[in-house]
Amino acid sequence: MKIGRLNHVGVATPSIEDSIRLYRDFLGATKIHEPFDLPEQGVRVCFVDVPNSQIELIEPLGADSPVHGFLAKSPKGGQHHVCFEVPDIIAARDELLAKGATVLRGGEPRIGAHGVPVIFVHPKDMGGVLIELMAEPEHH
Amino acid sequence: MKIGRLNHVGVATPSIEDSIRLYRDFLGATKIHEPFDLPEQGVRVCFVDVPNSQIELIEPLGADSPVHGFLAKSPKGGQHHVCFEVPDIIAARDELLAKGATVLRGGEPRIGAHGVPVIFVHPKDMGGVLIELMAEPEHH
Repeated sequence: MKIGRLNHVGVATPSIEDSIRLYRDFLGATKIHEPFDLPEQGVRVCFVDVPNSQIELIEPLGADSPVHGFLAKSPKGGQHHVCFEVPDIIAARDELLAKGATVLRGGEPRIGAHGVPVIFVHPKDMGGVLIELMAEPEHH
Repeated sequence: MKIGRLNHVGVATPSIEDSIRLYRDFLGATKIHEPFDLPEQGVRVCFVDVPNSQIELIEPLGADSPVHGFLAKSPKGGQHHVCFEVPDIIAARDELLAKGATVLRGGEPRIGAHGVPVIFVHPKDMGGVLIELMAEPEHH
């Protein structure tokens, strides 16, 4: 396994609309995609492009959203996860499990915001950082 | 002002050596730079390369290190800041101050880990995310 591109940094927020204003008006981000819902993950997301990567704004969607717990501890929002691309998501998952890492959902990949399979490694195994691994998107 | 490349994600850790093992052995990072001290900032740092960006591992250096406070809340470590490049750090600082943002150290830039001037925007103004802005390094 070899980590590839830093695909995006996930940032939890109580309001995507408010966060868009920060990235647009304070930092001058110019390419901000249309927000969309991922109901099966309990989140609404919005990608903000920078030249070499993206910020993924994440807002809770629905009462059971896993982001509510994050915002209960950090009401203003904050850094939620870091996502790297890997060439083979199943090989990466199997290697992590063999090394004793805790992969969320028992390691079963699901389709992420970019339409490709993703897995999450528990932060307890990665120095307190929630790591998302995603299959390389087609356009690379 | 227009944010440029996501230069790095800053990750606080109680031990750079332990974190290097995670990124090397679990995630397969292959280009890990030599750690070095930044005594005037109270940190020891280590850059881990991915194809399009870097992870900056940050360990407290000295009793007054600002990272001790972070680790007191998150003993395993965690995501500390996100750093974007800007073409003109002074213009960026002036624009942020004019818009009412709180820039740390009164907006006075200092030389960061890449040898170029950096400023930090207070997380209270940026949705709970500590944002570092750095002048574009020479090699870009």
